[in-house]
Amino acid sequence: MIIVLKPNLSRRDESAVIREIRKLGYKPHIMRGVARTVIGAIGDELTHQSLESLPATFPNAVESVTPVQRRYKLVSREAHPANSTVDVRGQVIGGKKIQIMAGPCSVESEKQLLSTAVAVKSAGATILRGGAFKPRTSPYEFQGLGLKGLKLLDKARRETGLAIITELLSEDHAEMVAEFTDIIQIGARNAQNFQLLIAAARTGKPVLLKRGLSMRIEEWLLAGEYVLSNNNPNLMFCERGIRTFETFTRNTLDLSAVPIVKKESHCPVVIDPSQGAGRADLVAAMCKGAIAVGADALLIEVHPNPAEAWSDGAQQLSLDRFAKLMDELKPFIAAAGRE
Amino acid sequence: MIIVLKPNLSRRDESAVIREIRKLGYKPHIMRGVARTVIGAIGDELTHQSLESLPATFPNAVESVTPVQRRYKLVSREAHPANSTVDVRGQVIGGKKIQIMAGPCSVESEKQLLSTAVAVKSAGATILRGGAFKPRTSPYEFQGLGLKGLKLLDKARRETGLAIITELLSEDHAEMVAEFTDIIQIGARNAQNFQLLIAAARTGKPVLLKRGLSMRIEEWLLAGEYVLSNNNPNLMFCERGIRTFETFTRNTLDLSAVPIVKKESHCPVVIDPSQGAGRADLVAAMCKGAIAVGADALLIEVHPNPAEAWSDGAQQLSLDRFAKLMDELKPFIAAAGRE
Amino acid sequence: MIIVLKPNLSRRDESAVIREIRKLGYKPHIMRGVARTVIGAIGDELTHQSLESLPATFPNAVESVTPVQRRYKLVSREAHPANSTVDVRGQVIGGKKIQIMAGPCSVESEKQLLSTAVAVKSAGATILRGGAFKPRTSPYEFQGLGLKGLKLLDKARRETGLAIITELLSEDHAEMVAEFTDIIQIGARNAQNFQLLIAAARTGKPVLLKRGLSMRIEEWLLAGEYVLSNNNPNLMFCERGIRTFETFTRNTLDLSAVPIVKKESHCPVVIDPSQGAGRADLVAAMCKGAIAVGADALLIEVHPNPAEAWSDGAQQLSLDRFAKLMDELKPFIAAAGRE
Amino acid sequence: MIIVLKPNLSRRDESAVIREIRKLGYKPHIMRGVARTVIGAIGDELTHQSLESLPATFPNAVESVTPVQRRYKLVSREAHPANSTVDVRGQVIGGKKIQIMAGPCSVESEKQLLSTAVAVKSAGATILRGGAFKPRTSPYEFQGLGLKGLKLLDKARRETGLAIITELLSEDHAEMVAEFTDIIQIGARNAQNFQLLIAAARTGKPVLLKRGLSMRIEEWLLAGEYVLSNNNPNLMFCERGIRTFETFTRNTLDLSAVPIVKKESHCPVVIDPSQGAGRADLVAAMCKGAIAVGADALLIEVHPNPAEAWSDGAQQLSLDRFAKLMDELKPFIAAAGRE
Repeated sequence: MIIVLKPNLSRRDESAVIREIRKLGYKPHIMRGVARTVIGAIGDELTHQSLESLPATFPNAVESVTPVQRRYKLVSREAHPANSTVDVRGQVIGGKKIQIMAGPCSVESEKQLLSTAVAVKSAGATILRGGAFKPRTSPYEFQGLGLKGLKLLDKARRETGLAIITELLSEDHAEMVAEFTDIIQIGARNAQNFQLLIAAARTGKPVLLKRGLSMRIEEWLLAGEYVLSNNNPNLMFCERGIRTFETFTRNTLDLSAVPIVKKESHCPVVIDPSQGAGRADLVAAMCKGAIAVGADALLIEVHPNPAEAWSDGAQQLSLDRFAKLMDELKPFIAAAGRE
Repeated sequence: MIIVLKPNLSRRDESAVIREIRKLGYKPHIMRGVARTVIGAIGDELTHQSLESLPATFPNAVESVTPVQRRYKLVSREAHPANSTVDVRGQVIGGKKIQIMAGPCSVESEKQLLSTAVAVKSAGATILRGGAFKPRTSPYEFQGLGLKGLKLLDKARRETGLAIITELLSEDHAEMVAEFTDIIQIGARNAQNFQLLIAAARTGKPVLLKRGLSMRIEEWLLAGEYVLSNNNPNLMFCERGIRTFETFTRNTLDLSAVPIVKKESHCPVVIDPSQGAGRADLVAAMCKGAIAVGADALLIEVHPNPAEAWSDGAQQLSLDRFAKLMDELKPFIAAAGRE
Repeated sequence: MIIVLKPNLSRRDESAVIREIRKLGYKPHIMRGVARTVIGAIGDELTHQSLESLPATFPNAVESVTPVQRRYKLVSREAHPANSTVDVRGQVIGGKKIQIMAGPCSVESEKQLLSTAVAVKSAGATILRGGAFKPRTSPYEFQGLGLKGLKLLDKARRETGLAIITELLSEDHAEMVAEFTDIIQIGARNAQNFQLLIAAARTGKPVLLKRGLSMRIEEWLLAGEYVLSNNNPNLMFCERGIRTFETFTRNTLDLSAVPIVKKESHCPVVIDPSQGAGRADLVAAMCKGAIAVGADALLIEVHPNPAEAWSDGAQQLSLDRFAKLMDELKPFIAAAGRE
Repeated sequence: MIIVLKPNLSRRDESAVIREIRKLGYKPHIMRGVARTVIGAIGDELTHQSLESLPATFPNAVESVTPVQRRYKLVSREAHPANSTVDVRGQVIGGKKIQIMAGPCSVESEKQLLSTAVAVKSAGATILRGGAFKPRTSPYEFQGLGLKGLKLLDKARRETGLAIITELLSEDHAEMVAEFTDIIQIGARNAQNFQLLIAAARTGKPVLLKRGLSMRIEEWLLAGEYVLSNNNPNLMFCERGIRTFETFTRNTLDLSAVPIVKKESHCPVVIDPSQGAGRADLVAAMCKGAIAVGADALLIEVHPNPAEAWSDGAQQLSLDRFAKLMDELKPFIAAAGRE
């Protein structure tokens, strides 16, 4: 920790701060600068008591306290210099091939799901997405088909061979959802629901962790740390748009998160351009951008009839539009040196 | 719903949109304006299919769709014109008296908790706060004493007569936490963890719902709707700072949320200035402001020795500072016509 | 400056960084910690070359660079421990009396301005606000009466004795505006238009500097530094709402800015609740809150007929509502120990 | 305008609102819905008085007012369905070729500028950027070489044939800057300094308008309207990152702005990845993303020795890194069907 003292401090006040630093288990190292004195408090920040309360305790003596260590360990590139990969029914996420996860926002019916599954597979997707449990802003909106939806996903998996990704909303459903899915998705609203993260991790299934609406990247990486530290090495980060002041789009898709997370962490990074912009007409451009900045996979909402979707119709692509998009992406995938 | 069409649309394109509106169960009402045509789609927006996907379905014909109805019902002032109040062990929140909820961020030990409880009671607080389950950004930080912490809160309750408020982190703990607390707190990170909200509501205990870090007020009211629609009428909203670009404070306490929520809803509104600013030196000023804008209660972090607190030391007040603050607040409480 | 190095760095890489620090004029001071080495670079940060490019220059060796000194000098409390005050025609801003600046958003006509001036004076305001040059988001909106508006302000000043505050939009108008006003207002959109700040400072008139829509407090203080360093000691900071994700209000009024700026700086702090919330129905509550948190003055939009105002009608108070508000504020002013 | 009334309103209250709508020049059109009545106010919103103050005037009767028309005209795709292009010394921006604008943040010396100019030209750039007047957060930072810097840009232009882009900071410099530059840049801090926009437009030189730090796209387009409505058709929009809560990057580069502005407007769109991320190590990825989402040009900071740059060293590329980047971009430019 770096402790910056106020200017023109008496030696007596300085000594009181130094005593407290020692008391909390750090070895103080004093540097007298031009304008003020700085103390380096040497000790392991991850195991020692935090010093962050020093400015509150010594309001007239301590100006600021800054940590030195990164707070995340297992997700960090330092801990695992090579890219890690996640294998889902033989499809590798984080390898050379860009994986496409596609399907409806909500599972609505067998016909809707299977027709979508067949279409997205034929267009090149390898993983089928579909919500059986839906987190909805209002209790009066469609909350998902639940177990019935999970069984439809399983049926689609058997019929098409696609792997499945679906969202987990409740700790109590962890085992049930794990039974029917290949990847557990943690949604943006639950990105810091640590109990849910632990429950997901413990199923042993790969976890795709969406970024919370106003989550700093450091917090996102630390939330991922809850998965890895619960003995589940199969973690993917998924950027899905952050909340800003802009109103043209529902969210602002932060593509810079891709190179940053790839640099800080070894885990694969997925982009969800459907949630990210919240507008179907932007999905194609943002998919191209995602591939160009280095994303490992895309998560795209596709529906046989977006106008009549039970949720988020504004951002879902039709089957035709999706197939066309898959063609449009090819040159960008090649340009990125991917498959 | 109000559907704005693109300018210079052919009658044929217009008819296609109108047919779809009818198909989804609304009665269209056409207004031809100077620059473009607007369609009023008449029907109950809370029960009908949403029209929000029209711009995606008719990208060349529909410019925008705007809902007309408020999406929240039970929390709304329209549904319940008078202020509602929450009674906790004889203390009324939302009435004339401003209630003070105070105590440590985390329950750490019997001595720490009881000395705080005695001190805050003697200074005028009526409700004791204290975290037994702590949501921490990093898995390596102190996660709370759990059941042991709940039992200490219970002991403090018996010894001082203070009511208890503590946070619920997991659906699985709902019954256990309800056994030991008088108010269940839902934290900012779980403000849209709807399963947790439902579990909290079903315990029958009053629920204090903190605003999520980037939650719009409409979303917050809708999250509250999950409590009321699960047959629990005892809901309080608690503003605790929103996430902005500012870095001097950990969060930006949005005091304008108080008059807005009081206008839109009948539920009591609580302010948490400790989390709200994240700095002990701002707590006093923000408490005064909170009372002046019309808050019904304050939730304040107090610790016998903030420098050695196991969490959030930077924002906790010492016992002396808290007692002094209670005195400073008196003229503002009187100015607000409260007790 | 504090330079944090990457872990497990070779001595050779470390030496290269140290050489560069010396070359840029700083004296390096090395601290070897548990996880990594930290270098304190001793030297005056305000006159030396910045070290902020070190991580870019040594991407494999330098993790971060953090400045130690505050970047603002003349506006800081350290430079001037006592509160500074601004005297405008005998009215002191920053003293014991809370000053009320009130008037229409735009000057529209002699009748509108004079009737407002007489009414706000009689209700207790001491300073008349009114825009003669209006920064409007669209070129098709009313841009102000210009010189004619300034002359009307001057007439109102002569007839009522109220001091005048009006906005300066263009360097080229600085002398003209200074001739007719007592306080020059710099609007939020121009808060980092440094040329305008310099031009305003050089007129010698007191300057009221609004906070930009997404300005960090540090940046705001530094913008104020442009005024003081151009030999104009009469500076006031005015918080007028920041831009956030919330849509119920036009802006989020950040009342915590008051105690922060009062702590960091000696300059008076003014609150504009009209712009701050953008809704007339919130103005009263936010005025009370502003006084409670320690504001020195309020800037309130008042119009004889808000429904027919040429700009920002939604946030202006009627003359009656304003007079009633002035009464409502009295107990809060007393509670704050002000007049 | 669409006026939504409160539920259960008396006919008398309704009539008062309707009379006011008529008085302000609109023709009211009444729709009685399930929950509430909606009034369509028919009339040209760009020339009539705004109705936005109705909720303030009739707080118990009017719930909301929503405009129907787009507020921008000349910049809109509706006004000019084809892409517009800007020709700068024979280089066309907005055509098939992706133009690269590169150079130092600040002009520092003849040697620094000319060596950069030669290098970026040889790597494929066609336009040289370089700041002669620098807007700096603090008055104590380097403010640019001024006229001397302009003359060096002119010299570089003559020696290399590159076109020049440089920032205009002051209305008073408009003619002088126009004499030495081919494109006038309006910086983010001045994006709503409308006097400066008008002054820039009137020079007749092409204008590159950066997006303000917290500017909504609608506001940005309206700021562009100030250029076009002052008889200058040569306008480019430049996204350079918006301000968010994230702290890993200085700004969040909003690549979704590209497809949105290309859809709403006919003007070329430029991306500045250097400012956008504020970190040199992210520039390459964000350049690739920018091309993939459809940008027409890139504005990249390049410096012979970033470590010793007088401003923004952390985000400037070295000459070598820039040349390498130009190679890396080629496959993405081809994938985008550009040159």
